[in-house]
Amino acid sequence: MAVGLKRKDLLGTRDLSPEEIGLILDTATSMKEIASRDIKKVPTLRGKTIINLFYEPSTRTRTSFEIAGKWMSADVINISTGSSSVVKGETLKDTGLTLQAMHPDVVVIRHAAAGAPQILAGLLKASVINAGDGAHEHPTQALLDLFTIREKRGTLSGLKAAIVGDILHSRVARSNIFAMRKMGMQVRVCGPATMLPRYMDRLGVEVFHRIEPAIADMDIIMMLRIQLERQGGGLFPTLREYSKLFGLNLDRLKAAKQDVLIMHPGPINRGVEISPEVADGPYSLILNQVENGVAVRMAVLYLLAGGQTTTN
Amino acid sequence: MAVGLKRKDLLGTRDLSPEEIGLILDTATSMKEIASRDIKKVPTLRGKTIINLFYEPSTRTRTSFEIAGKWMSADVINISTGSSSVVKGETLKDTGLTLQAMHPDVVVIRHAAAGAPQILAGLLKASVINAGDGAHEHPTQALLDLFTIREKRGTLSGLKAAIVGDILHSRVARSNIFAMRKMGMQVRVCGPATMLPRYMDRLGVEVFHRIEPAIADMDIIMMLRIQLERQGGGLFPTLREYSKLFGLNLDRLKAAKQDVLIMHPGPINRGVEISPEVADGPYSLILNQVENGVAVRMAVLYLLAGGQTTTN
Amino acid sequence: MAVGLKRKDLLGTRDLSPEEIGLILDTATSMKEIASRDIKKVPTLRGKTIINLFYEPSTRTRTSFEIAGKWMSADVINISTGSSSVVKGETLKDTGLTLQAMHPDVVVIRHAAAGAPQILAGLLKASVINAGDGAHEHPTQALLDLFTIREKRGTLSGLKAAIVGDILHSRVARSNIFAMRKMGMQVRVCGPATMLPRYMDRLGVEVFHRIEPAIADMDIIMMLRIQLERQGGGLFPTLREYSKLFGLNLDRLKAAKQDVLIMHPGPINRGVEISPEVADGPYSLILNQVENGVAVRMAVLYLLAGGQTTTN
Repeated sequence: MAVGLKRKDLLGTRDLSPEEIGLILDTATSMKEIASRDIKKVPTLRGKTIINLFYEPSTRTRTSFEIAGKWMSADVINISTGSSSVVKGETLKDTGLTLQAMHPDVVVIRHAAAGAPQILAGLLKASVINAGDGAHEHPTQALLDLFTIREKRGTLSGLKAAIVGDILHSRVARSNIFAMRKMGMQVRVCGPATMLPRYMDRLGVEVFHRIEPAIADMDIIMMLRIQLERQGGGLFPTLREYSKLFGLNLDRLKAAKQDVLIMHPGPINRGVEISPEVADGPYSLILNQVENGVAVRMAVLYLLAGGQTTTN
Repeated sequence: MAVGLKRKDLLGTRDLSPEEIGLILDTATSMKEIASRDIKKVPTLRGKTIINLFYEPSTRTRTSFEIAGKWMSADVINISTGSSSVVKGETLKDTGLTLQAMHPDVVVIRHAAAGAPQILAGLLKASVINAGDGAHEHPTQALLDLFTIREKRGTLSGLKAAIVGDILHSRVARSNIFAMRKMGMQVRVCGPATMLPRYMDRLGVEVFHRIEPAIADMDIIMMLRIQLERQGGGLFPTLREYSKLFGLNLDRLKAAKQDVLIMHPGPINRGVEISPEVADGPYSLILNQVENGVAVRMAVLYLLAGGQTTTN
Repeated sequence: MAVGLKRKDLLGTRDLSPEEIGLILDTATSMKEIASRDIKKVPTLRGKTIINLFYEPSTRTRTSFEIAGKWMSADVINISTGSSSVVKGETLKDTGLTLQAMHPDVVVIRHAAAGAPQILAGLLKASVINAGDGAHEHPTQALLDLFTIREKRGTLSGLKAAIVGDILHSRVARSNIFAMRKMGMQVRVCGPATMLPRYMDRLGVEVFHRIEPAIADMDIIMMLRIQLERQGGGLFPTLREYSKLFGLNLDRLKAAKQDVLIMHPGPINRGVEISPEVADGPYSLILNQVENGVAVRMAVLYLLAGGQTTTN
């Protein structure tokens, strides 16, 4: 590969160039082929060490990074709170410096605090990948979303996407908005007023408070997970009310394009923000997103950890 | 190997044929040799991905599957509740579909709900292995028990086994009853009336309420772990009372055959269902069971994941 | 390597000979080179199985052993309480025998009870490494400390070290005292009277109750972590008071040698036992200690597990 990713870390999509996004997606295309092999193993990252540092619970993201690393023959070390010195109250700085001293090549971090990956990146010689920081960014999720759209439509530029739900608290929405805009897509957001940030227009995004007009004419509808634990926090009256106003079901889908793509970062709340018929329906890309997540994370790990070859 | 296992999943012993059981035990014999090598590593499952999905705590079963997979060069991914999306309330169906999208070859599942592995198996292209579901089945435990008996006696057919304890709540008992009966063994069960299911006679099993007559003339006595947390639930008065009536100690063992084999799936409650003298005595196979567990799980993983060769 | 370590286990530094310590440190020197490679992977322990059995939370020690094992191509299995049969109340003996039946080559154990690793070592054919047992020993910590000192000073014999803090409850202090004395170092301990054991003079160690005279003329100052949870236990009035009397800050450091080496086993309590200026200062070896921890653990694993070669 002649051109690499000229950066040490992947902290967000906000500061990625369209060329960098294109490089990651192109690399992921060749990575995806590996998952279909009978022997899912390449020596690309042999002798490289990846640390998964997860301060929040996760199945799909942690597992996705772990599989991505192992298929490329890297050593993968999982550290999760509850079984680590984190319980002893060590600061993020000291945890980071400690890990650095063990010579990892990549540290993948998920943290409840926005900005934690950036702090880590400033401390470490290792590459840092943000696997979700508070309500800030979750760049590999946006990249796998773009990969999935491009795979289906052949292009990104000119496509129109509506993101529906709790935009205010969603790192997935933010990373997608940045990435989609950079790739020439039009973006709408839709949700209760209490869940929409004020700066949306600055990002070149249209704001809707009702779902029907928001999803009309869209190529993609991306539903966000509603955080069940926010119920009672004053952001929305009840789950039932939220579902009635903003949930995506077959009836509501009639307002959308015939070939609209339905996306969701998961895990889904069936019957809340998305009905089972839609989630499991023919235009749902939810499982494609998960599948492509491994390929995109392989690409990102490969491009950052400086592997030498992707073949064999 | 000319003949493989003509099934995708291992959900229980109930639907295994004697030929299938024989194939697994024969394969385990060649696998066991690997554990005695100085270099415990074969390339059999290189490039295959095994996910250990444990909804209940476990040391021996999870570790046994993990070691079995790693010795055959598979990538092994552990997911346990408490550090996963399970805490976010995702359904088993969605967790299963999500994992499937990551292209695992085998998913090993332990779950508190009977039938959970079957649901998963219906959803996944990957092979599903039941590592214990509620009080339903725990097939690899029964298979390793049969392997251990056959290793000691050279055969299974015609042998007589008594299973003693909480039969009603024991997936180990159920899987063993099905498997032993298929292999031509005679089976007795023994326990308090509150711990014996009603359908025993349909399974061709004799029922005893006192331990002395139950273990007389038996080739094998399999003691079950009493669930300490069931104390006070009305099934038995006290641990002391249970131990007095159904515990196996040296004195009681006089009623058994001279060369009787003592088994227990572990972890044992020393001094409750089994006395230390018996557990650590010359006819105890408890540690053989653990040792053979790795070999049997290697065999099952190999036969399901379609590895090409077991040598080198 | 012509000479190996003529012992099965590493339980403490108390029973190590100076020659054995020298062998471990020399081996670690060649291991450290591996960490600086682009491909951090040697086949030394391929086909060997290492079990990390951690009854107490840990980041750095568990991660350090896991990385050490993986860089040498061993299979590494993590077992931590909370996701294991330990919650079912299995005895250490039975857990040990169960693990032994799975043919591990090394079991690394951390346990709250002093002596637990010794019990395990008596039961297992596998090598047992004590990764910290109560307030008793933590030998690999002391060995990495010696390695770090020797790396900076070229020798150990004749050097003078002061260990400051809760000596009474510190396995790090105990292992260092034994090891330093064996290697010909002079050792002082310093802390509140409530935190100093009575047997110190028997170990050939000088006792100080004030930090200024304790650190004067020392080559090494080793600060111990104060256990925040001990506050209110009557051992010291408040953290603030402790810090004022025994904390190491720039002002206090003026009493020490110009080129004194500052050490701490981590995780540090910034502003309590050590000020940030000192912890991050030019003579702080805290991160060198972590880095060398991997090399020393590689050496110990290699010497105990009987690998054949360290090269390639």
